[in-house]
Amino acid sequence: MKSFASDNYAGVMPEIMQALQKANDQHARSYGADELTQNTIKLFKEVFGADVAVYFVFNGTGANVLSISSTTQSYNSVLCADISHIYNDESSAPETFTGCRFFPLPSNINGKLDVATVKERLIRKGDIHYPQTKLLSLTQTTEYGTVYSADEIKALTELAHDNGLYVHVDGSRFFNAAASLGCGLKEISTDCGIDILSLGGTKAGMMFGEAVVVFNKALNEHIAYKHKQVIQLASKTRFIAAQFDAMLRNELWQKSALHSNKMAQLLYRELLKHAEVKMTRPVQANVVFATIPIEWNEPLQEKFPFYVWKDPTNEVRLMCAFDTTEEDIALFAGAIENIKK
Amino acid sequence: MKSFASDNYAGVMPEIMQALQKANDQHARSYGADELTQNTIKLFKEVFGADVAVYFVFNGTGANVLSISSTTQSYNSVLCADISHIYNDESSAPETFTGCRFFPLPSNINGKLDVATVKERLIRKGDIHYPQTKLLSLTQTTEYGTVYSADEIKALTELAHDNGLYVHVDGSRFFNAAASLGCGLKEISTDCGIDILSLGGTKAGMMFGEAVVVFNKALNEHIAYKHKQVIQLASKTRFIAAQFDAMLRNELWQKSALHSNKMAQLLYRELLKHAEVKMTRPVQANVVFATIPIEWNEPLQEKFPFYVWKDPTNEVRLMCAFDTTEEDIALFAGAIENIKK
Amino acid sequence: MKSFASDNYAGVMPEIMQALQKANDQHARSYGADELTQNTIKLFKEVFGADVAVYFVFNGTGANVLSISSTTQSYNSVLCADISHIYNDESSAPETFTGCRFFPLPSNINGKLDVATVKERLIRKGDIHYPQTKLLSLTQTTEYGTVYSADEIKALTELAHDNGLYVHVDGSRFFNAAASLGCGLKEISTDCGIDILSLGGTKAGMMFGEAVVVFNKALNEHIAYKHKQVIQLASKTRFIAAQFDAMLRNELWQKSALHSNKMAQLLYRELLKHAEVKMTRPVQANVVFATIPIEWNEPLQEKFPFYVWKDPTNEVRLMCAFDTTEEDIALFAGAIENIKK
Amino acid sequence: MKSFASDNYAGVMPEIMQALQKANDQHARSYGADELTQNTIKLFKEVFGADVAVYFVFNGTGANVLSISSTTQSYNSVLCADISHIYNDESSAPETFTGCRFFPLPSNINGKLDVATVKERLIRKGDIHYPQTKLLSLTQTTEYGTVYSADEIKALTELAHDNGLYVHVDGSRFFNAAASLGCGLKEISTDCGIDILSLGGTKAGMMFGEAVVVFNKALNEHIAYKHKQVIQLASKTRFIAAQFDAMLRNELWQKSALHSNKMAQLLYRELLKHAEVKMTRPVQANVVFATIPIEWNEPLQEKFPFYVWKDPTNEVRLMCAFDTTEEDIALFAGAIENIKK
Repeated sequence: MKSFASDNYAGVMPEIMQALQKANDQHARSYGADELTQNTIKLFKEVFGADVAVYFVFNGTGANVLSISSTTQSYNSVLCADISHIYNDESSAPETFTGCRFFPLPSNINGKLDVATVKERLIRKGDIHYPQTKLLSLTQTTEYGTVYSADEIKALTELAHDNGLYVHVDGSRFFNAAASLGCGLKEISTDCGIDILSLGGTKAGMMFGEAVVVFNKALNEHIAYKHKQVIQLASKTRFIAAQFDAMLRNELWQKSALHSNKMAQLLYRELLKHAEVKMTRPVQANVVFATIPIEWNEPLQEKFPFYVWKDPTNEVRLMCAFDTTEEDIALFAGAIENIKK
Repeated sequence: MKSFASDNYAGVMPEIMQALQKANDQHARSYGADELTQNTIKLFKEVFGADVAVYFVFNGTGANVLSISSTTQSYNSVLCADISHIYNDESSAPETFTGCRFFPLPSNINGKLDVATVKERLIRKGDIHYPQTKLLSLTQTTEYGTVYSADEIKALTELAHDNGLYVHVDGSRFFNAAASLGCGLKEISTDCGIDILSLGGTKAGMMFGEAVVVFNKALNEHIAYKHKQVIQLASKTRFIAAQFDAMLRNELWQKSALHSNKMAQLLYRELLKHAEVKMTRPVQANVVFATIPIEWNEPLQEKFPFYVWKDPTNEVRLMCAFDTTEEDIALFAGAIENIKK
Repeated sequence: MKSFASDNYAGVMPEIMQALQKANDQHARSYGADELTQNTIKLFKEVFGADVAVYFVFNGTGANVLSISSTTQSYNSVLCADISHIYNDESSAPETFTGCRFFPLPSNINGKLDVATVKERLIRKGDIHYPQTKLLSLTQTTEYGTVYSADEIKALTELAHDNGLYVHVDGSRFFNAAASLGCGLKEISTDCGIDILSLGGTKAGMMFGEAVVVFNKALNEHIAYKHKQVIQLASKTRFIAAQFDAMLRNELWQKSALHSNKMAQLLYRELLKHAEVKMTRPVQANVVFATIPIEWNEPLQEKFPFYVWKDPTNEVRLMCAFDTTEEDIALFAGAIENIKK
Repeated sequence: MKSFASDNYAGVMPEIMQALQKANDQHARSYGADELTQNTIKLFKEVFGADVAVYFVFNGTGANVLSISSTTQSYNSVLCADISHIYNDESSAPETFTGCRFFPLPSNINGKLDVATVKERLIRKGDIHYPQTKLLSLTQTTEYGTVYSADEIKALTELAHDNGLYVHVDGSRFFNAAASLGCGLKEISTDCGIDILSLGGTKAGMMFGEAVVVFNKALNEHIAYKHKQVIQLASKTRFIAAQFDAMLRNELWQKSALHSNKMAQLLYRELLKHAEVKMTRPVQANVVFATIPIEWNEPLQEKFPFYVWKDPTNEVRLMCAFDTTEEDIALFAGAIENIKK
């Protein structure tokens, strides 16, 4: 099966598989004390151009919960987009672990938060009755596959810092964002002054594993303890590190992200050919959002599973992965032609 | 490096690596909805001889927290051995997630709980001031590498059930226990009436992954939701399932556990040769506990890292893994001879 | 000082003080096992016309948290009005205690939730990624001092129950609601099928104390334990019970609520005289919302503290209490006249 | 009924009742912003001879949970006596709120912790797998009614501080301790360097209310927010403040504590007359622990309820309150004589 359901339907990049094989040699210290893990952390420092701390975790929810729990007290609140993954798709893990309230902010048509929206919610500082806002969480790429520019992130970060908030970026598709902007990882993290990043690996073609990257040294006091406490410390950490090492060392992340982004563009152009299809969001990374005739769903989904995003308008989400091929797109395009016959 | 520090210093069994390779084919539904995961769950039902529910998780703490959180309300308390992993080595993850109190019970010299000890702590039922005891958590093999017999588990389970408690088994080395007893997995779980099991994979030679096996159908109401909530749901679940499939389908677990148990016996016999060494616990699975002269530590640990368990007596823990070889034991024995020269 | 800031600026009704004096006799069993508490619970059963369970608590947040924690699992979500007290004014106590997510629903101009709004949010049932919605929390009277009719509550309760949700009513001013509707407490609780009620005492003229009234017997399994666990069990419970006994036995609640409601009407009529003042919400209970000229704030607040509710329009909240007098209103009216001179 | 069950069976001291009456005058700012509360806090500063912060709470569990939650992160552990109230009688409120693990330390025959016992448990600092110990919680008077001397507290505090721990004193009967030692409140708190105190009011003769007294200014950062978050902020705070004002201003606490302590001595002397009775703990404050013939329980408890503390030996706890009279003791003594006839 090939699908446009999610990039987590895809498997593992061959280069990652090789890295795992290679890491499977002899004994190594557990819980991240091994050489491979330590070297990979050094590589992160190079790539991000800063003395970052790095914590490898199992999955995206783990990365987000560790990030939130390291930047808040239990009486705090967090600002996030109403459509964000942490607000809609991580059960109540964020609350259960951190005790915080999550305030959903209206995102714009492109799924982004802007300065004015955030500003409006910076209220009641010092009022003990109100869960004190301490964190702004952004998603890069957004749930709509759009990309914050470095300037947009800088502006939001400046606003946040001016008001005593930390900034977290949920970057489960951070590689796609950087590829889309044609920049490195540093330019949209370190250089923008964000405090902490959930850097996604799984959706980019890893077997499992994400990394929490800490830019703000003030966060180092508690996070190593929280790492274990939020159940995100792998005993055989080297097998997460090895995957990130492969991703970062050989620009494999770019190979993966540029490809899946390109496939989305291809798919976009195919869909443009059909008057029945209406594009609903800008295609900036590896996903296409569009409304299609509802009667197309069944015949298309039979061969190429995908999600209907919004029911009444039949807005669908078509996600490309590192292993989506031009042939897959062509087959999908053909299936549409077939329906219209 | 080879080490006797922990079986989680070891890497991945070659058969497991092959299974991972094989699973890396095409797209598959995420979050456990894929065929491979579903088939592996069927295999669990066969192996355990019961209509069990199975939840694949990332690590041992995850398995334990999911088990505890599915058997308790936040006003409950849990009985566990004073030396247990959940009480000493999982940070405060159990409390933070479940809200429960954990009462440590004195374990005997072999690291086990007995009926009398548990009975004594079954107090204040219905007293709202006291966190109501709802769960008994056993460890199999124990932290001292000893093994509860089926009869011992049955007796404890009967006592627990008679008093309205559930029984959880933390089985991070459950395979070693079954191998030690020369029985299947079913005989010390299903047949003993336990309610829920953390079945370890990582220490047996998997890359990552454990399974929560639910025997008591009353626990099925909440656990699927808790699975996601406690951050233990892998998006590419097939890569955990594939490893368990390999472990269970071809009796690979027996190969792994029988071997590491045998290596511990070999090591035990080597150590017995030295009058300076005193065995402190029965060697029933894949670990040897013994007191050794403190001046041996440094020269031995240089080549073969291991943990000092108790400081004043210099009791050390020597753990064998699936990949410990007779040659490793011989080298270790040789290193002792060298010291004594 | 007299104020229109909040009914919790007021002190204690003389009848309540007498009840406290009377209760202060000899020793009595603690934690609610005393006769007075038991008799007061019987009185609740009469007043509510049902075999309710009653838990006396310290304050409104305590009543709400106990109610929520008794109707949810930690992976659940709660629907509440965006302007509700539990969402804005109880810190993150609800999350910290229950682990749940709270989804704010847009309230209408009168501060109420309607069936269509709730219906729209009943989504993703059975989806483990989404915090499963289990509770609808209404506020009676609303934060705008408006009152849900029995029919409105019934419609919302029916919708909730049809979808497997419980219904909680945050009734910190429940007496005012019943007085406004000219009915008893039973007609807008028992008769509407709600599951659990936070019945407010403090704002009505008690010194401290609220009651959680449980209508749905399915909730009785855990709540007594939760009562202690959420730190809401008073050792000398008789002194809360005595106050409620006085409130309910002699229709003292009606005296209090009818009076404060009446004072709000009086105030409303005074304000109507001024073209500069615009009423912003219907006056149905003991509070008036209106926009006034911003330059009036300072001279008025000097003598009669009140809250500005919304900044840009200078909407103010003027709350009446059991001890607001016609003279207070007259003085306030006079102060306005003074300003306009 | 008069009882020796608990000092919380007693009612309210007449002086306290008068203070409540007096405080019930006009409107006052809520949530502690009123003059009476502010003045009472000033009085605390005088009495404790230090620039303490004071947070009024509803009950003892609330005081303890607020104290613990203000001195810990969720990955911390707390050391407390195995017989302590927070470990045995506050449900799992401490865990649910704070996330921390509580390690019970063996108390000596008098219910106290000593330096050696605490020292032994100061382990695994910096080990992320182990919940990091951050707080030592003492109980004054202990659950056995014994009293830590200033020197004992100083020694424990010094040990704790040397190891990076805070010191909390659960002083639900702190007044009795000071009265027993013949000193002020300052000598066994400020002067000993403790960080935070739960100062009990209810058991001393208040209607409800305790105070958290903060000595260590480092704790001031979060505690005001936690105060609200742990549901311990009273809207009409003046009615707790008024009671403490009465207690502290006129040495009423001494009147209460000296009297109840004296009654315990009287009771002790009466019991000494009977060879069947064996004193089990030193009588230093307002409680007597003794083993009595089991057949005495029923006839005595009929008129004077009390608790059996330990079953097999029939050790009973006889607690005196501010309103225990010499006549009560005489009647109790007479009842014993009657049984023995």
